[in-house]
Formats: sequence, C-alpha cells, structure tokens
Amino acid sequence: MYQVDLNSDMGESFGAYRLGGDEEIIKYVTSANVACGFHAGDPMVMARTVKAAKAHGAAVGAHPGYPDLLGFGRRKMVLTFEEVKNYMKYQIGALSAFATAEGMRLQHVAPHGALGNLCQEDREVSRAICEAVCEIDPKLIIFYCAGAVLGDEAKKMGLTAKSEIFADRAYMDDLSLVPRKMEGSMITDENIAIERCIRMIKEGRVTSINGKELDIAGDTLCVHGDGPKALAFVQRIREAFADEGIEIRNFS
Amino acid sequence: MYQVDLNSDMGESFGAYRLGGDEEIIKYVTSANVACGFHAGDPMVMARTVKAAKAHGAAVGAHPGYPDLLGFGRRKMVLTFEEVKNYMKYQIGALSAFATAEGMRLQHVAPHGALGNLCQEDREVSRAICEAVCEIDPKLIIFYCAGAVLGDEAKKMGLTAKSEIFADRAYMDDLSLVPRKMEGSMITDENIAIERCIRMIKEGRVTSINGKELDIAGDTLCVHGDGPKALAFVQRIREAFADEGIEIRNFS
Amino acid sequence: MYQVDLNSDMGESFGAYRLGGDEEIIKYVTSANVACGFHAGDPMVMARTVKAAKAHGAAVGAHPGYPDLLGFGRRKMVLTFEEVKNYMKYQIGALSAFATAEGMRLQHVAPHGALGNLCQEDREVSRAICEAVCEIDPKLIIFYCAGAVLGDEAKKMGLTAKSEIFADRAYMDDLSLVPRKMEGSMITDENIAIERCIRMIKEGRVTSINGKELDIAGDTLCVHGDGPKALAFVQRIREAFADEGIEIRNFS
Amino acid sequence: MYQVDLNSDMGESFGAYRLGGDEEIIKYVTSANVACGFHAGDPMVMARTVKAAKAHGAAVGAHPGYPDLLGFGRRKMVLTFEEVKNYMKYQIGALSAFATAEGMRLQHVAPHGALGNLCQEDREVSRAICEAVCEIDPKLIIFYCAGAVLGDEAKKMGLTAKSEIFADRAYMDDLSLVPRKMEGSMITDENIAIERCIRMIKEGRVTSINGKELDIAGDTLCVHGDGPKALAFVQRIREAFADEGIEIRNFS
Repeated sequence: MYQVDLNSDMGESFGAYRLGGDEEIIKYVTSANVACGFHAGDPMVMARTVKAAKAHGAAVGAHPGYPDLLGFGRRKMVLTFEEVKNYMKYQIGALSAFATAEGMRLQHVAPHGALGNLCQEDREVSRAICEAVCEIDPKLIIFYCAGAVLGDEAKKMGLTAKSEIFADRAYMDDLSLVPRKMEGSMITDENIAIERCIRMIKEGRVTSINGKELDIAGDTLCVHGDGPKALAFVQRIREAFADEGIEIRNFS
Repeated sequence: MYQVDLNSDMGESFGAYRLGGDEEIIKYVTSANVACGFHAGDPMVMARTVKAAKAHGAAVGAHPGYPDLLGFGRRKMVLTFEEVKNYMKYQIGALSAFATAEGMRLQHVAPHGALGNLCQEDREVSRAICEAVCEIDPKLIIFYCAGAVLGDEAKKMGLTAKSEIFADRAYMDDLSLVPRKMEGSMITDENIAIERCIRMIKEGRVTSINGKELDIAGDTLCVHGDGPKALAFVQRIREAFADEGIEIRNFS
Repeated sequence: MYQVDLNSDMGESFGAYRLGGDEEIIKYVTSANVACGFHAGDPMVMARTVKAAKAHGAAVGAHPGYPDLLGFGRRKMVLTFEEVKNYMKYQIGALSAFATAEGMRLQHVAPHGALGNLCQEDREVSRAICEAVCEIDPKLIIFYCAGAVLGDEAKKMGLTAKSEIFADRAYMDDLSLVPRKMEGSMITDENIAIERCIRMIKEGRVTSINGKELDIAGDTLCVHGDGPKALAFVQRIREAFADEGIEIRNFS
Repeated sequence: MYQVDLNSDMGESFGAYRLGGDEEIIKYVTSANVACGFHAGDPMVMARTVKAAKAHGAAVGAHPGYPDLLGFGRRKMVLTFEEVKNYMKYQIGALSAFATAEGMRLQHVAPHGALGNLCQEDREVSRAICEAVCEIDPKLIIFYCAGAVLGDEAKKMGLTAKSEIFADRAYMDDLSLVPRKMEGSMITDENIAIERCIRMIKEGRVTSINGKELDIAGDTLCVHGDGPKALAFVQRIREAFADEGIEIRNFS
C-alpha cells in the first residue's frame, strides 16, 4: 500500500488583506503549513486557520519565514545562525499556542520562501532550523524539498524528515526545482503532472528536465488552492491517487 | 512566615536598541516579566533574557503588550475581544518556546503598559487575556495590579492570580495608582517606600494618598533595574525584608 | 454650472497583498487618495499608483493613517498632538517624492480610517493634521467629511478645505455618517443614492435618517472601485451627472 | 585654503529607544545624516533631529537604509532595482517634509549600513539610488565612501558626489575599508588618525594597510558622537584642522 500526504501553504492573509483560498483547499489536504506572522499571517489569521484545519481533520505545521512582511519572505536576508534559530523558535512557539488552544499538537515545520530555498544547499541555515526544532519539540517533523540538505541535517540530528514533492514543477539533475524563469520549469499538462506524481510516490523516480532518471522520495505533495483551477486540479489528483491505490494521509 | 515575590520587567531591548539594566536586576528578582516582541523585545532578546533568568534562578513570565513597537505599548489601542485574546496567545506561545528550550515553563502572565492599565477597570479586556491563558495553559498565574478587575476575572475563570504592588507609587482610594502627573504620585523617600512595602506584605494594608486605610494584597513587588540608584534601592529592599522575616521567593 | 470632484481611496495594496480595483477605478475618478505606508501601501505601490493617476489625469492626494498595518488604520489609537502632526508630515512627505518624480504636485490630504473618523469631532487631532499641512505645504487642500470639525480647523488656519460626501451612506442630524451597524446606514437603492448626490451638489441639501433637512456642501464625492458592481455604479453616477450638467473635475 | 565637511549619523533613536549622542555631536558637525524610519528613526525623532541640526547650523541629509528595523539595516537584503529606487524615494521624501517644515532643504543622501556597503562595488544598486535622487531632486549631493562605485555612478548621472573618509578606519589597497574583524582595521592611535585625516584632505593621499600609497578624495569626514571619548576626539580633530588651516564647512 502506498501513501502520501497532501500539504498546502495556508494562513498567509494579514489584517485586512486576504490571500489564498484557504477555506476551500483545507477540505482537500491532510497537512496545513501555517504562516506564523513574520512573512505573512497574524494572530487572528493563525487562530482561524488552525480552527479550520481541525474542523477538516488536517494536521497543522509551522511555515516560518524571514521577518519581511513587505517582501512576503521571498527576499534573501543574510542572517546569523542564532538569528535563524531564534526566529524559528519564536514563530513555532507562537503557532503552537493556537494548536494547543484547539487541543492539537503541531505536526511539522516547513520553512517558507527564500529561507526555504536556502535550505536546498545551505547546511548552516538548515542546522539552525533543526536545532531550534530539537530544542523546543524534537517530535516535530521537518518538511524538506526533495534533494535539499535540510533533510540530511534533520536526520543527522535525529529528527524525522519528510520529503516534499511538487506536481507542477520540473526538476534539475540535482533535484533542485527548475527556476521559474527557465523554459520548461512548469509542468503545464495536468495528465503528465499527475503521472509524474504517481511515479514519484510509487517508484521513487522522476525524470529531470534534461531527461535524466533520478531517485526521489515523495512523502508529501505540495498543492495550491488559489483559484477554481487549482482546486479542480487537486480533486483530479485525489481521484487519480485513489485509482492507483495511493492513500492520502498525514503523519499524525 | 511572610513571603513575597520580586518581579521586574525585562527583555525590553530590540535589535540594536538596548533598554534597561537586565544583566544586573536579574540577580535580585525572583520573577522576570519578559517582553514578547509586540511592544518590545525580539527573538534574540527573548532567548538571552530567558537564559539569564534561568542562570539566576528567576522564574519567567510573559509580558505581552499592544502591537505597537513605535509607542512601546504605552498608547491605548481600541481592539476587539478576539484581537486581544489572539494577540495574547501569540505572544505567550512565542515566549514559551524559549522557556521550553531552556527546560523551563512559563510561570505567569503580566500585561504591559496601556493594555495593563486597561485591566484596572475593563472587564472585557481582562476576560480576553484570561481566556487566552485558560486555553493555552491554565497553570499560568495572572499578575494583576492590586485592585484591578483583572484579578477578579482571573479567579472567576479558575486561574491563580497574584496581586502586584509597587514600592515607589502612591495609591488612590480605589487602589488604582496615582497618575504620574498628580502631585504625590511617587513615593520618593526610600525609607517610607520600604516601610509601606513591609506593611502591605505583612498587614495587607496601605494608606491612600487621601489618608484612607485600604486593604491590599501584596503577593509580588515590582522593582526596576535601570540605573545604579534603582539597583541600590532593590538591595535595600532585600535587606529590609530579611530583617523583617519576609522571605523573597517566586511561585514556582 | 455645477461641478464636483470624484475621489477614491487607492494604493492600499501592500507587498504581495492586493486590495481594491485601482486599475479600473482610476479611469473614473478625478482625485486619488493614496495610502502612504502606515495603514496600507508601500513604496512600490505608491510609485505604481501615482503613475496610474498621472496616466489617467487624476490628481493625487495623501491618505495618511495610523501606524497600524495590522489593523488597516481602522482602530483608534490614542496619540499625542505632536505624534499626529509628525506622522502626517512623514506620510505626506513620502508620497510627495513619488508625485515629484512624476512631475506632479500633491493636491490634497484626506485622513484615513479611525484617524479620519476622529476628525468628525476632535479639534485637537484636526489641528495637528492642519498644522502639519501648513508647515510643509499650505497649498495642499484638506478633504474633510461634510460636517467634520476638520473643515473648520483647516479654514481657521487659512487652508483650503473641501467637503466630501458619500453616495451610499445615510447621515445623522449632525451630518455624521450613520454608523454601519445601525439600520438604514447604507443607501442601497442606486437611484435614490444618485438623486441624493445630485441634490447635495446642486442644492447643498440632504435629508437625514430622521427626515430632517440639512445643509451640506458637496465638493468631492467618494466612490469605490472594488468589484464590477461598484464600477458600474460609478459609471451610472458619471452619466447622471452629465445629464444634470454637473461637471466632474478636480481642484488642480 | 583647504576645507572639509564633518558628518555624523544621527536620528537613529526609535520610539522609547535612545541611540547615539545626537544632542552633543550636533554641536561639532556641519552635516547630519538623518535616519528615515526604515532601519532606524521615526517621525518624532526625525522632527527633533532636523530641528537640532537647524539650531546648530548643520546641513541635513537623508540616511536611508533597508526596511529592517530589527537588523538596524545592517543585514544584506536581496532587493530588485525598483525596490531600492522606490525605498529611497520614500525615505528621502519623508525626511524632506521635516526639512521643509524648518525652512531647510536636504543637502545630501548617504546610504546606511548594508545598503551603503553594497555601494562599494554594486553598480546596479548604486544606480537605483542615484536614479531616485535624480527623479526627486537632482540638487541633492550623493555622499559615497571614498573608492565606492556609487561615486562614479552619481557623477555619470550628472549628480554632485562627495567622497567620505574615516578617521578611525584603515584602508585596503582598493580603498575599501579593512573589515572590522581583520587585525589593524581600526586606527586606534588618535595622533596617527588625525595625521592621516590631514594628509587625506590636504594631499589627497593615504597609506593602505599593506603600505601602499593611494589617491583618495576627502570631502567629508565621518565622526561619531557616542560617548565622551568620541566627542573629545571630534574636538581634537577640530582643533588640529584649525591649526592646519583646514576650514570645516558643509556644501550648502
């Protein structure tokens, strides 16, 4: 029996600003990556998002980012090891309170945006994130992009790490995502995207943009909920997985 | 045997900005009220402050405030019940992570500045704070200014509440602090200040600015650490309490 | 010949967050009230908004608010006179730079949200705003809600002040807007709304929610651009004004 | 006759946080680099700082930085050309309002911290800054660290640029400052520091840390006002310059 988690970034609204289709996508995913107030999200949004996750039976994880609301956490900032570590503790702790209030525990931590991208290759930043997790709750699972050093570093520290894959993105030969500005970066044909997902999950293999066959672990699949098209795609994924005998479930 | 807790506001630095004499005052108090990043404090400062509290055997509590760094949480903001409640959860949760990382638990919650002032009379704001505490950790003790409705509301919800007194402030007939701009608001004679403290702790009585005798509970005494004079005063207080058989200890 | 300005709040997006239908409504208004980065807006949004105003021939004014992005400037904050005054200077100055870069001058200042609401009755806050304007550019026109003391205070200081009216809101007997939670606060019948506007502009009269006839000055009409229905309504207003011989033009 | 400007960073306090010895150093400098609210400073501080500069006859310039109060603008952020450009416009515009209110004009722009450091070699960032200045006020003088490409780019665009030198810092062979962590980075002997300044100003020459003779332009000398020692050093500099016939004056 195969299984996979479906995750989505959520709780990225802020004050009067609404972003994403949280109310809908929460019905289809098994894990919610919830913004923690640094790059997006605020206490009201966090409360609302955690409640919605609970109502729909989804697990909740922290989606911490840079302290850069203006840049939505997508701009690289040069931080020290201790800064990254303490920023993680702060954000994970803040979100934990909302989980606790709902009688839940956080399941995972998935770094956001430019911070997440750094974890592809930057072992020091990866270690800073993992040390924060070890010190506040070593049961928290690290979500890392398939191929990122964050996964290695988490495992070295004895943390559980789960590999995240993407339905709509092409891979380079080193498993990094093909940059969006490069041609072929997006898998636009939905049938091909779904076939690739199934193969990543069942065979642990994917074909790179250069045609190379790569090993890949597909523990959790990232999906999007912004717009009716994205939602329809998630529904198609769920149906295809059912047909293929892939169970959709989280790690809790 | 009499006893009292000595508390002080701490961790109010931010980034490159240093405020307060945390390194010194932490040696003399038994409870630290730590700012949580809204009106003051940041993750680096919080980490440092919690470590210092642990090193000196002081208990750590949250000192949450308005989301107004620019105004240091001293300017009243008109917030909804849910806003206050969620802002409390967020800040207490964030600080908890740093306590957990040091193998500590938070002892208490003491609202800061204009939010704290509101708790003198505003039952709705007081309830919002207490509900947040109930939902995330009902073992947390509420620190309220002697006479404030926050104490009542906390007890109604089954929380433990401790009454905070001030050595250097005069009281109105309703136990509210004499506003700083009124004459006689500050008890400037240190001998008188210390005598008043001892009486509040041992007899549970204080004389108001109008000469009225009032009942007052003195569970925890707030002291300041900014400057050598303040520190010398705390030392005098400690010596006087020792002479009077008042044990200085926190609630943990 | 009658004339009126059509204004709309704009530039209220922030970073990755989009708010309002600026691209469309800018085609129909003659004055844009541009957020200045405190309650909404950021330098990128301000640059974009001023450029759009220029492209469509609209005048640009500052729409300054409280330093409360989280609350979108809609929550009352208790500030000192000097704080209000300096916050105004800062925001107006910041927006001026973008106007200057486009070869434009700011036309007006229209306080936002809870700060704007205060100007209904609070003479001190109104004076703080007007003093800021006097000191940095006394040619700037103050937009005040019809009936607000801000208009008086502006005129007392020798500033030009223009009275803002609303098509979709009912008025109390003192010309303050009927609070949204009261029944009858919104004029939902578009025909009635338009007739009311025409009467306010041509006769300077409006009927209050209690049926009382009031004098009102209608120099500038506030319209909204969020959604196709709002835009269609603005188009109807423009057509009705044309039929009635009311020229739509700004004050520049 | 030789002449030099003396500049100092100022207005870096924020809200309740005080930083620097502005009240004293303003008496000794001819140009004030005033923080603009992004990395430090706020509208109250800006108002106070500009007033103090006026009172002591110092010229005022903008000291814009990254939008990173938490990091005091000392952490590199990866921004786009347009982001840098618009962040500059915003900050310069905001400060301009306070200058205008005092009947002053801004004299110059001196980028702060990590943004300033980037201007040593990054032509794109330098151009973004200069384009912002060109578009809002081409009379503004660019202050650049001696040797930085910012000076070239400013001149290419027709702006006036002035070369800033440091009394207490050693230079690499390419005129960049010796990094603080390298041995010999600071000129600790005050006599040597002053001799070096005089030589930079009168001969346009300095000896690098490797003993190489370099050409250097010394238009404006950066001094610090934090602490009595720093102030005493500035006084010594002023006396030495008087003895050497170097007039201290700004560019206004």
